[in-house]
Amino acid sequence: MENIRAEIISIGNEILAGWTMNTNAHWIAQKCRDIGLSVQWMTTIADTEEEIKSALHTASSRANIVLCTGGLGPTPDDITKNTIASFFNTDLVLDEKTLAHVLKLFAKRNIEMPEINRMQAFVPKSATIIQNPIGTAPGLMFQEQNRLFFFMPGVPKEMKNMVQTEIFSIIKSHFNLLDFQIYILRTSGIAESRLFEKLEHTLKKYEDIPLSFLPKITGVDIKIKIVNTSAEARQRTENFLSEIRACIKKYIYSEEEKDLQEIIGEILRSRKLTLAIAESFTGGLISDWITDIPGSSDYFLGSITTYSNESKIRELGVSEETLKSFGAVSKHTAREMALGVKKVFGSDCAIATTGIAGPGGATETKPVGLCYLSAIYKDKKFVKEFHFGTDRRINKERGAMAALESLRRLILGI
Amino acid sequence: MENIRAEIISIGNEILAGWTMNTNAHWIAQKCRDIGLSVQWMTTIADTEEEIKSALHTASSRANIVLCTGGLGPTPDDITKNTIASFFNTDLVLDEKTLAHVLKLFAKRNIEMPEINRMQAFVPKSATIIQNPIGTAPGLMFQEQNRLFFFMPGVPKEMKNMVQTEIFSIIKSHFNLLDFQIYILRTSGIAESRLFEKLEHTLKKYEDIPLSFLPKITGVDIKIKIVNTSAEARQRTENFLSEIRACIKKYIYSEEEKDLQEIIGEILRSRKLTLAIAESFTGGLISDWITDIPGSSDYFLGSITTYSNESKIRELGVSEETLKSFGAVSKHTAREMALGVKKVFGSDCAIATTGIAGPGGATETKPVGLCYLSAIYKDKKFVKEFHFGTDRRINKERGAMAALESLRRLILGI
Repeated sequence: MENIRAEIISIGNEILAGWTMNTNAHWIAQKCRDIGLSVQWMTTIADTEEEIKSALHTASSRANIVLCTGGLGPTPDDITKNTIASFFNTDLVLDEKTLAHVLKLFAKRNIEMPEINRMQAFVPKSATIIQNPIGTAPGLMFQEQNRLFFFMPGVPKEMKNMVQTEIFSIIKSHFNLLDFQIYILRTSGIAESRLFEKLEHTLKKYEDIPLSFLPKITGVDIKIKIVNTSAEARQRTENFLSEIRACIKKYIYSEEEKDLQEIIGEILRSRKLTLAIAESFTGGLISDWITDIPGSSDYFLGSITTYSNESKIRELGVSEETLKSFGAVSKHTAREMALGVKKVFGSDCAIATTGIAGPGGATETKPVGLCYLSAIYKDKKFVKEFHFGTDRRINKERGAMAALESLRRLILGI
Repeated sequence: MENIRAEIISIGNEILAGWTMNTNAHWIAQKCRDIGLSVQWMTTIADTEEEIKSALHTASSRANIVLCTGGLGPTPDDITKNTIASFFNTDLVLDEKTLAHVLKLFAKRNIEMPEINRMQAFVPKSATIIQNPIGTAPGLMFQEQNRLFFFMPGVPKEMKNMVQTEIFSIIKSHFNLLDFQIYILRTSGIAESRLFEKLEHTLKKYEDIPLSFLPKITGVDIKIKIVNTSAEARQRTENFLSEIRACIKKYIYSEEEKDLQEIIGEILRSRKLTLAIAESFTGGLISDWITDIPGSSDYFLGSITTYSNESKIRELGVSEETLKSFGAVSKHTAREMALGVKKVFGSDCAIATTGIAGPGGATETKPVGLCYLSAIYKDKKFVKEFHFGTDRRINKERGAMAALESLRRLILGI
C-alpha cells in the first residue's frame, strides 16, 4: 500500500481560451477515484514545445503517474509527439503495426488515406504503444524509474477507450493502489445545514470516520471514504451508516451514484406503474430527464407542456374558474394539471409544475421563483408551494428535482 | 499593447477527486477571452498549505495575473486565507466593514450569526478587499510589482459577481490588454469535413487570416481572431467573411455566441409567429431548450411528448392506418405528429420528432439512431430521415438541433 499520486495534464489551447470545457480531466479524475488512485494535480497548458516540456518536467518531480491528453492528431499544429520524443531523448520511428492499423481504418471507411495520416504511424522509439482501436493516433507510454507517463489523444471516446482497456491495467500491475471503500448517500429536498443539524449527534459519535457533504443544485450527496477496510472498521462504518439512515431516511433516494430519474424509473418498473407529466414551470425538463433513461418507454406514457391558460384548460382540463380565482400559478392549478394529465394518458402516477421561472413574469403577489408542484399516485395526492431563486435554468432544475422527489416519497409512503 | 498572461488556479479536493466539474475555470477563461486577456495556464490543486504556496510560487514566476478560486469559506478546513497571508508575509486583521456586511447578511436572513462566520471578517492586512455583496467571504487582491493576484470564493455565483463588477475593471485599469477582434459563425446541419470542402478555395486565398473549426454535437462553429485591427486588416477580414458567407450561407444560424433555440426565438418573435412541438425521439428536450430562453412564453404555446402509439393517435391525431402501414418511426408519422400538434395548439409553426433513440428498441429494418423530423411553417412542410449514432443522449441532442434547424430554414425559406 503506497501513496501513489497522479497528475492529469491537458494540452489544449481551446480549453485555455474557454471554448471547450475540460471534461476529459473530470472523467479521468472520476475513474482514478474509482480505482483508488489519488489525483493531486490537474494542469492545462498550451500546445507549445516550451509549455509541454515545462509541465512534464514539473510532473516528473512530484507525480508517480502522469496522464496526458491532447495534441496527438496528424495536423502540423499538433507538435506534442515531437516534443515528447525530445523530452524523453528518443527519435520518432515508423511503427509498421500502427501504419497497418491506420490504413485498415481508412479502408474500412472506403476513403483513400490522406498522406498526412502516415505521420500517425511514427512513434517515439522508447515508447510502449497503447492501442487505439477506434482512431488513428496511438497512445504512448514511457517509464522512467518507477514513474509512468501516458499520452493519449484528446478525442474523448478514444481517450476513454485507452484508459479502460489498457492504461488502468498497466497502472494496477505496476503499483499497489490504496485499498479503500466509498459509501454514498444521495439526498434531495433538504438543505446541507439542515442535514448537518439532524446528523450532528451521530457525526460526533463517529468523528473518526471522515464524512463529507457535497451540495449540488439537485440535492446534497453524503460521502464516506474509508481506507482501513478491516472487518472491524467495516462493521463500525456499517453501524455509522445505520444511524445516519435512521436520522434522515426519507431524504435518501439512492445509495449508489444514480440520478433521481433513474431511481424513479426503477420504482415505477418494479411496481408496474406508469407516469404522465404536465409541465409549465419546468417547460419539458422533467420529461427530458425521464426519457434520458434507456427503456423509459416501459413506464413513461407522455407529457404535456402548457405555456398558456388556454392550453391548460383545453389539454389538461384545468377549470376556467380555478384559473380565474387562483391564477395559473397556484396550488389549485397544479393539482388540476396533475389530475388532468393523469386522466389524459390514463397513467397510475402524474406530476405537474406551475410557477414563475423568471427573470420576467413576476407580479406583486407572485415573485420569480414561486412554484407549485403536484404529484399523484393512484388516489394519493400531494401539492406544495416552493420558493426558489431568480436563475431561470436553476429554477427549472430545482423544480424538476422537487417534483420527482415528491412522487418518490408519495409512492413509497414516506 | 503588452503580452499579458493570466493563470487560473482552482483550489479544490472535490475537483481532483472527480466529484465536481471545474466549471469555474471554464467560465473565467471564457470571460478573459472576451476582454482579450490570454489565459496560459489552468492549475487545480489540493487545499493544503504546501500545494497552495507551491502553485502561487510557480504562478508568480510566469503570469502577470493570477485568478484563484476556492477555499475561502468559514469552516476550519478552509486554510486558504491563512496560507495566503503567510505567502504574502502579512497578518490577518479584523476588517470592520466586512464584519458589518456579514452581520447584515445574517440579519437579513433572520438568522443569528454562527460565531464561525466572524472569521470571514479577518483579512490579510496588505490585501485589497473585493466586495462580495451576495456572500460572506470577501475576495482579496494582492499586488506585487506589476503582478496582480486575486482570490475568490469557489461558489460560482459569488465568484462571477466579483469578476464582473470589480476584478475586470481593476485588470483593465492596470494593463493595456491586447486589441483584437473575434468573429464567429455558428453552423448547423453540416459536418466539419464538408464545411472544409466548401471553403477550401476561400481558405487558401485568405490563408494569412487564422481560422479554426470547433465541432460540437450540435454543430460546427467557425472562429476567426484578428489581432491586427487596422482599417485595412478589418476590411480584408470583412471580405473574407463575405466570401465565406457566400459559400455556406444556409448553414450559418448565428454570427454571435447564441444558441439555435435563442435564434429561433428571435425569428418567431420578430415575425409574430407561434410554435408547438410534438416529441417522441427527443423526449421533451426541444421543449426544455425552447423554454430555457426568458420570455419564450411569448411565442411558445406548448408541447406534447408521446411515448406510445395510443397517445400519438389520441393526443396528436396520427391516424391508425399510418401507424399500421408505416410504423411510429416513419416519415408519415412525423408529418402527422407535426400537423396534429399544430392543430391542437393552433400555432403557426410546429416541429415533430420520432425515432429510435437507443440503446434498445431497434428492429431489423429500423436501427438505433434512425430519426424522422418534420417541421411546418404555415402551409410549408418539411420532413426528413436522419441517421444518428448509438448514444441515447447524443441522439436526443442531435435530433433536437436538426429539428430546430429545419424549422429555421423553412421559415427563412433557405
